[in-house]
Amino acid sequence: MGQRTTEPPISWLMHAALSRPKLISLAAGFTDNASLPVAGARTALNQVLRSPKTGQPALQYGITAGNPALRKLTAEHLRKLDLQAATRTGVRECWSDGVMNSTSQHSTAPALHPEIYSPERLLIASGSQQLLYMTTEALCDEGDIVLVEDPTYFVYLSILQSRGLRARAVRLERDGFDLAHLERVLQSLRRNGELRRVKLFYLVSYFQNPTGVTTSFQKKCGLLKLLKKFERAAGHPIYLLEDAAYRGLRFAGNDVPSALAVPGAAERVIYAGTYSKPFATGVRVGYGFLPKPLFAAVKHIKGNHDFGTSNLLQHLVARALASGIYGRHVARLQKRYAHKARVMKLAIKKHFPPAVEWREPEGGLYFWARLPRNVSTGLKSKVFSTALKNDVLYVPGEICYADDAARRKPNHEMRISFGNASEAEIREGIARLGKGLRKFLK
Amino acid sequence: MGQRTTEPPISWLMHAALSRPKLISLAAGFTDNASLPVAGARTALNQVLRSPKTGQPALQYGITAGNPALRKLTAEHLRKLDLQAATRTGVRECWSDGVMNSTSQHSTAPALHPEIYSPERLLIASGSQQLLYMTTEALCDEGDIVLVEDPTYFVYLSILQSRGLRARAVRLERDGFDLAHLERVLQSLRRNGELRRVKLFYLVSYFQNPTGVTTSFQKKCGLLKLLKKFERAAGHPIYLLEDAAYRGLRFAGNDVPSALAVPGAAERVIYAGTYSKPFATGVRVGYGFLPKPLFAAVKHIKGNHDFGTSNLLQHLVARALASGIYGRHVARLQKRYAHKARVMKLAIKKHFPPAVEWREPEGGLYFWARLPRNVSTGLKSKVFSTALKNDVLYVPGEICYADDAARRKPNHEMRISFGNASEAEIREGIARLGKGLRKFLK
Repeated sequence: MGQRTTEPPISWLMHAALSRPKLISLAAGFTDNASLPVAGARTALNQVLRSPKTGQPALQYGITAGNPALRKLTAEHLRKLDLQAATRTGVRECWSDGVMNSTSQHSTAPALHPEIYSPERLLIASGSQQLLYMTTEALCDEGDIVLVEDPTYFVYLSILQSRGLRARAVRLERDGFDLAHLERVLQSLRRNGELRRVKLFYLVSYFQNPTGVTTSFQKKCGLLKLLKKFERAAGHPIYLLEDAAYRGLRFAGNDVPSALAVPGAAERVIYAGTYSKPFATGVRVGYGFLPKPLFAAVKHIKGNHDFGTSNLLQHLVARALASGIYGRHVARLQKRYAHKARVMKLAIKKHFPPAVEWREPEGGLYFWARLPRNVSTGLKSKVFSTALKNDVLYVPGEICYADDAARRKPNHEMRISFGNASEAEIREGIARLGKGLRKFLK
Repeated sequence: MGQRTTEPPISWLMHAALSRPKLISLAAGFTDNASLPVAGARTALNQVLRSPKTGQPALQYGITAGNPALRKLTAEHLRKLDLQAATRTGVRECWSDGVMNSTSQHSTAPALHPEIYSPERLLIASGSQQLLYMTTEALCDEGDIVLVEDPTYFVYLSILQSRGLRARAVRLERDGFDLAHLERVLQSLRRNGELRRVKLFYLVSYFQNPTGVTTSFQKKCGLLKLLKKFERAAGHPIYLLEDAAYRGLRFAGNDVPSALAVPGAAERVIYAGTYSKPFATGVRVGYGFLPKPLFAAVKHIKGNHDFGTSNLLQHLVARALASGIYGRHVARLQKRYAHKARVMKLAIKKHFPPAVEWREPEGGLYFWARLPRNVSTGLKSKVFSTALKNDVLYVPGEICYADDAARRKPNHEMRISFGNASEAEIREGIARLGKGLRKFLK
């Protein structure tokens, strides 16, 4: 068989969860059940299916790139988001740096340039996950290297593994990856002749999974400048794949412009977003802005995978967006997650021993907790088995780290999600977790 | 870039169609618009979303393999279909042949054995297309060989091309591929040491796209026997990927059992089916029965591609199946296609010159017409440009043939679809097509 059949660790976690009925899972990336938009989805679907005239197009095949109305609404939405964020934050400083202006066609205010946010550059996918997969399929051959944050989204590591790709990990700081470390990694790849295998940098830029870290705009600017600098030695473009899956789930602080807003850099940026997490995870609709040659390649791959994402789901999302159902839902959801994050914070403060380091996220679904280095949290650790015995589950940090010989893989961290658990479950789950931790951290 | 970016010919056809507003397309594989189940889908969705209790699970992530209720309904449906078909047709004769009983655990009536039709072996995908892609991804490495019918489904050829796979084409007869030719192809592959690169046979078994041919059960038996015979020399299993996408669209004649019903052969059969074509192409839900090791591999790939097919769509289909909405819809649809096929037949009789050979299909969406060998129908032919000038579009036969140096690629055929066009369009479209053909076939 051609596949690389390693069972992903998440399957193991899910099995563990299913076999213990009293288990509280703080592991899953599932979203909040109680706030799922049942009435909103029903209303929007009844509007779509109210007559043959509106219903038939939704029940027929569409075009592979996606429903034009949804692409237009999405492109417009993203342009507005970036414009607001750019106006608020220090984008102008970045512009005045003249970053990458050698490739820029637009000397002023490129974030406002409508071409970058054109629906023609936008492809609809079955969740942003599919876009991550297809982009990686389009760009990378077996043996190629993908730069990732350390740690990063573990399902992306599974994509790399299944396609025979290698990862090089770049250290993570409080405001995103370590730019100086990235430069050293690139230099070392150049030295040993491997730079030509580097095709992209995969970045989870908002409330990163698993750490909750958001990448600053300055770092996005610096990143694209750096990648550009190494392109000549690589002999081909090095792309940035910006995974913004959690961007819509901000409940504190200010939005950051996407990498699309970095002057002159849009031709190196793939921006992947999704409606699944902010609206309903059972409605799998994601999207991506892609540079033109990549757009054609990924659209072709999408045609081979499944012709195009379900037209009915696309009409549902477009209807929810146009009618305001979506906007109202997201506003409610942000409040709800803000509350659940607060509940988790208070429980952690109360129950976790002081030796555990953790930080409060401004959005997304996760807390990231760090134990002393000598206390393992891995699948085979005592901390993990004790948690399981106490009927609580977390994601061991170790599965979020790429295989990279350049450093020892950390295994003393944990991802704890407030997404799916109820408030009572969060309180009880953290209490159970804390109880176990106190045994090992005296 | 890692991808092989050849633009598929179908994109060209779609562009051609969009640029001529008066064009009648007999090319697209789209289904009948007027009969799309707008009211049925609305009813089923309102049932699914009637309360938080029923709606929340539909709007949340599910498990990667698919919704258990839908898998159970689907497995049961397929078992019944095969049982009915097996009872009606000559399956017993095949059984008494003792085909492949060396690997059979069940010496009598294996088609009835529930294990083969277990929901545990069934995986839900975003249309059967995705299952074709993932199965091919799981089984084949670059440079491997896939056996296909000659001609075959052109999007599958695009999958092969994009993954760097080679095709070997097996001649097609009125009741399916030519078994004797398949044996010669396998022998020649063995002779030149390439048998170890052969991983699967891709078979569109019901109302084949593009020819409308249905494979007899005897040939399925013979096929699996033959593949088994060559496995030793290949050094690994050779699978049958049975694409049954059109099975639900039969409007004449009797159903044929699937290859799953071939005694003892289920461990070599991947059966891909879909709800998209018989229900609504905008609702992308397909499925596949897979042998156990392949099931795990394909589920893992599915997890990497998109975690799992939209739960909302799966709940919709399950609800439509359980409530009878689906069954009633398919019964109506079969009558409608029977009628449209008759309209097309009468029009062809009236307008096509006698030198054109064609055959009436018993199901599916397509007529297949054959011109004299010296008259090309290809994208660059006069027949094609004349048709386009007369505002009618067909699929040139040449794009349905794999690249295979063992034979010259035929280019004197056309696929004509009655799926999407209205009755008036079918009459007018065939008249326009006939007018052009008469110019070249005097």
